[in-house]
Amino acid sequence: MSLVVVGSMAFDDIETPFGRSNKIIGGAATYIAWSASNFAPRIRQISVVGGDFPQEELDMLSLRGVDLSGVQIRKDQRSFYWSGRYHVDMNTRDTLDTQLNVLADFDPVVPDSYQDCEFLMLGNLVPAVQLSVIKQLKKRPKLVVMDTMNFWMETALEDLEKVIAEVDVLLVNDGEARQLSGQYSLVRAAREIQKMGPKYVIIKKGEHGALLFHEDHVFFAPALPLEEVFDPTGAGDTFAGGFIGHLARTQDISFDNMKSAIIVGSALASFCVEKFGTQRLKEISREEIDERIQAFVQLVNFDIQLV
Amino acid sequence: MSLVVVGSMAFDDIETPFGRSNKIIGGAATYIAWSASNFAPRIRQISVVGGDFPQEELDMLSLRGVDLSGVQIRKDQRSFYWSGRYHVDMNTRDTLDTQLNVLADFDPVVPDSYQDCEFLMLGNLVPAVQLSVIKQLKKRPKLVVMDTMNFWMETALEDLEKVIAEVDVLLVNDGEARQLSGQYSLVRAAREIQKMGPKYVIIKKGEHGALLFHEDHVFFAPALPLEEVFDPTGAGDTFAGGFIGHLARTQDISFDNMKSAIIVGSALASFCVEKFGTQRLKEISREEIDERIQAFVQLVNFDIQLV
Repeated sequence: MSLVVVGSMAFDDIETPFGRSNKIIGGAATYIAWSASNFAPRIRQISVVGGDFPQEELDMLSLRGVDLSGVQIRKDQRSFYWSGRYHVDMNTRDTLDTQLNVLADFDPVVPDSYQDCEFLMLGNLVPAVQLSVIKQLKKRPKLVVMDTMNFWMETALEDLEKVIAEVDVLLVNDGEARQLSGQYSLVRAAREIQKMGPKYVIIKKGEHGALLFHEDHVFFAPALPLEEVFDPTGAGDTFAGGFIGHLARTQDISFDNMKSAIIVGSALASFCVEKFGTQRLKEISREEIDERIQAFVQLVNFDIQLV
Repeated sequence: MSLVVVGSMAFDDIETPFGRSNKIIGGAATYIAWSASNFAPRIRQISVVGGDFPQEELDMLSLRGVDLSGVQIRKDQRSFYWSGRYHVDMNTRDTLDTQLNVLADFDPVVPDSYQDCEFLMLGNLVPAVQLSVIKQLKKRPKLVVMDTMNFWMETALEDLEKVIAEVDVLLVNDGEARQLSGQYSLVRAAREIQKMGPKYVIIKKGEHGALLFHEDHVFFAPALPLEEVFDPTGAGDTFAGGFIGHLARTQDISFDNMKSAIIVGSALASFCVEKFGTQRLKEISREEIDERIQAFVQLVNFDIQLV
């Protein structure tokens, strides 16, 4: 079993109604790796960072079993930087600053040692970069999962559609599903997106949970009702990491197991939002994860007698 | 077993992006009775209508087993009238016109034959009217469920708090729960509302499902993802009717059975929105209801193996 993760490793500067993070570690691939490494023993990371990226952050990931030979370090450049401010509802945010830096001309190189890839997780990134990784793999992975966002629908739709045509599972949020499909109903949106390639479509609704569509089947996973959301940054990436991590660990890509994987992803995401950045993800134990998954079981469990 | 339903019986005039209903039958108690009568054989209605309310609508309810001796008919007055227009998202709407008519000075009289009431469903209505019904019952019902809305929080908060203090289950939507409690987090909002009296709080989130809170327990029921929402009017009342109808039929007011009751309510609400007004509710069969409930079981069903 080998899981390859592609995405950004970056700096974030986050303002919420509760406080300001200052410059902390972020990036889709960072969150995915921290989340997935709870389940998948061998993660192979593909990313790019500048000379300003802290060595100890890389070391911590190595200690978790994350292979960083596919992470380019450009000593004389700076890492991708994003700064944003959340509104009071914690569901919407404004981007204050985006500095692409090393991401501006990122040309991923898949190391030979990654060629045994069975599970490929394409974190949100320039579609052409995502596609390049798919093309470099000599053997098609057992499962290719892709996350993306509205920005690429507006600036690189043609490239985006090429990647979408190649993947098994597409992860988008509700607004993005509507934008991509031109359909308001999420049932119809998912059907249209399946026509574009992916056999599975996961629509993330933040605090309202997530939907998994496959053919005529639909599964709904709630988000855990939380007393406090401290920082939602990275929750979607963390969800993706838990999802692919569970699938890679169990080696089972059936629809039924994808349901479980979504619950695992939701559980991990519920930790992520409790503190700034990846902080909470670095602390959680296997016992805490199991307890949290059990809370999801309780949350939706009912036994109804039809008459 | 006897279930008493209190609420408006009225005319609605609805505009949606799909069309216009013209003047059709509506009102909280109408929807509740149509929904609950799928489960509870003896429903006792308390309401008021004008001479313009169609006799055949009353006859249809009688044929369903709904006792109308508590429904005042004021021949020389007009029924309550509401007109509204839904936005494209079908989640928000503007009220175009409200004519209280017979509701303006409604003084409910509980018939003696209703005094065996075990389940009391207070549909959305003037809080003082809801309280009057509670006070007229000589023996406290086994379960009192109350629905209300933000309008009363703004215009009759003192009365509203008096009713809330008397009920077992309060039904509100997410915005109303926040407004009533002053808490943004729904977990905290539900906790504050429980302090006001109700041991159970149900927070309705429309297309995002519903949450049931009791002490430290929480249960989440999704809404069925629909291809098309034709008219959301009455969905909340229909939900309430399915909820109380299931509880009245099973005579079981445990937390576990309330979970099932919420699924039943959600299933009924998913029918309601398929056509204008009560039309779809008048057509559905027991088989269709069972199939729909089964769809909810499938929607959230997962089996996760912890490691």
